[in-house]
Amino acid sequence: MFKKVLIIGCGLIGSSILRAIHSKKLSKKILVLEKSKNNITKIKKIKSNCKFIKNIDSEVSDVDLVILCTPMSEYKKIIEKLNKILKANCLITDVGSTKQNIIKLKNKILNKKLNWISSHPIAGSEVSGPEYGNKNLFLNKWCVIIKEKKQNSKKINLLNKFWRKIGSKVVLMNPVNHDKIFSITSHLPHLIAYNLIKTAQDSQKIQRKNLIQYSAGGLRDFSRIAASNEIMWRDIFFNNDDIIKAINLFTKNLNSFKKIIQNKNNKKLLSRLANSKKVRTQIVQLKQDVSKPDFGRE
Amino acid sequence: MFKKVLIIGCGLIGSSILRAIHSKKLSKKILVLEKSKNNITKIKKIKSNCKFIKNIDSEVSDVDLVILCTPMSEYKKIIEKLNKILKANCLITDVGSTKQNIIKLKNKILNKKLNWISSHPIAGSEVSGPEYGNKNLFLNKWCVIIKEKKQNSKKINLLNKFWRKIGSKVVLMNPVNHDKIFSITSHLPHLIAYNLIKTAQDSQKIQRKNLIQYSAGGLRDFSRIAASNEIMWRDIFFNNDDIIKAINLFTKNLNSFKKIIQNKNNKKLLSRLANSKKVRTQIVQLKQDVSKPDFGRE
Repeated sequence: MFKKVLIIGCGLIGSSILRAIHSKKLSKKILVLEKSKNNITKIKKIKSNCKFIKNIDSEVSDVDLVILCTPMSEYKKIIEKLNKILKANCLITDVGSTKQNIIKLKNKILNKKLNWISSHPIAGSEVSGPEYGNKNLFLNKWCVIIKEKKQNSKKINLLNKFWRKIGSKVVLMNPVNHDKIFSITSHLPHLIAYNLIKTAQDSQKIQRKNLIQYSAGGLRDFSRIAASNEIMWRDIFFNNDDIIKAINLFTKNLNSFKKIIQNKNNKKLLSRLANSKKVRTQIVQLKQDVSKPDFGRE
Repeated sequence: MFKKVLIIGCGLIGSSILRAIHSKKLSKKILVLEKSKNNITKIKKIKSNCKFIKNIDSEVSDVDLVILCTPMSEYKKIIEKLNKILKANCLITDVGSTKQNIIKLKNKILNKKLNWISSHPIAGSEVSGPEYGNKNLFLNKWCVIIKEKKQNSKKINLLNKFWRKIGSKVVLMNPVNHDKIFSITSHLPHLIAYNLIKTAQDSQKIQRKNLIQYSAGGLRDFSRIAASNEIMWRDIFFNNDDIIKAINLFTKNLNSFKKIIQNKNNKKLLSRLANSKKVRTQIVQLKQDVSKPDFGRE
């Protein structure tokens, strides 16, 4: 499918792509640019025959696919280097979690000859690092490809084919819709989980009691999401403006929830709680989660 | 251990206790009072040799342990019936999730000759009904026994022994501390999960998009908790006054989180996100959750 692929940043997502490309034989050669020596040691254990490079230099000039898997805050300096070395037929993509900022940045500074089509595979975990990667990480997961007005349709088809080859279900979205949708299904839940854990930590100080040992009543679920990588999530919270709208809607609902409780409004409370249940059924039916109670934990 | 036990309400928790008592041979006879015919059919499949009763009548007069496993809103009318029939040596307990309300109620209306020592096994699931019960539901889980000023110490020891026999780790707490602790580790997380799902449902209407299909980015975790039984949770939200304090602290933290994002305060945001991670590590070390990433889901 490709002659030479370059993966920049090889943590959980980058190393999962590396494993998938190697396993499906999608490229004759794979270059990996990874700064952390610790990560390089771990990636060597994957035995993917990739070649590690230290800089974006002449060796990169003939790659036909570049995949950025670094935190988004590193994109700018990477683009500036790619601009100098890549050829016009090369396809660039990234796996960043917010899209309007990335499209704005690349439209501003990317060499106009180059093709960048942005991707967002909806796959991840609370753990980071190449040791947690998995060639099947993308299997049956959504991957969003960002549709802009003027795009090379051949390159879009190629990228689409690439994600489908490594197992994703592909959907095309414009960047505005992408950021709106994921502000609710991903960014707000993470922010709320972080906020709940902070609230539990504060309560622990106020109450002077070890609360955390009694987490099995619900708190433990949130602690998983709130253990996600802080650099990645800093970049997301700073770059999706829709998160503020999402927080405002959440706060409005929370205030009304509080009033319902204070007024002991039985009918309203029961209807609110029963309504939520429908969403779980839908999520399981859509195969967005396992069907077993308690996530199948034991 | 007991001659005759009565379980009132035989859903997820009641049927798990039934299974555990039967499996550990902790009582010669087990009576079950369950209103739902549908549930009775399911309980018969457990083959626990329990006897179903329809009312609290003379058959109950010689039980030595009564366990209330109904929603808390049903306790009042049950106590009024138990008052007329039970003997002084009988031990009564319950598994309700808030405690100050229960202690207040029983101190007000329970026959002074009777011994009620309240329990709270920290075990449960988003699913309800006896078909989901499990004799090992309490294994290595905390069970709180409520300590009051004047209590029969023999009965406390007996109850302690009972919970330990069915696998629980027992801790004694006064009702005030219980409600404070679980307002943070259980009640607030549930309320927040319900509120997040409501916010996603509202956004779906506002955006006119099917968001739910993209839940794998985080929302799906919350949907599990927000699928919990609405009667049980109505009773909890209406009866733990500490939930309002918990909401207020959560809202204060959320407002400050929003400001940190709006001001792009890098240092504060990173420290907040990195701090949360510690809680997950602690929870896993305390064996309050599975150690596998993503709850071991596949």
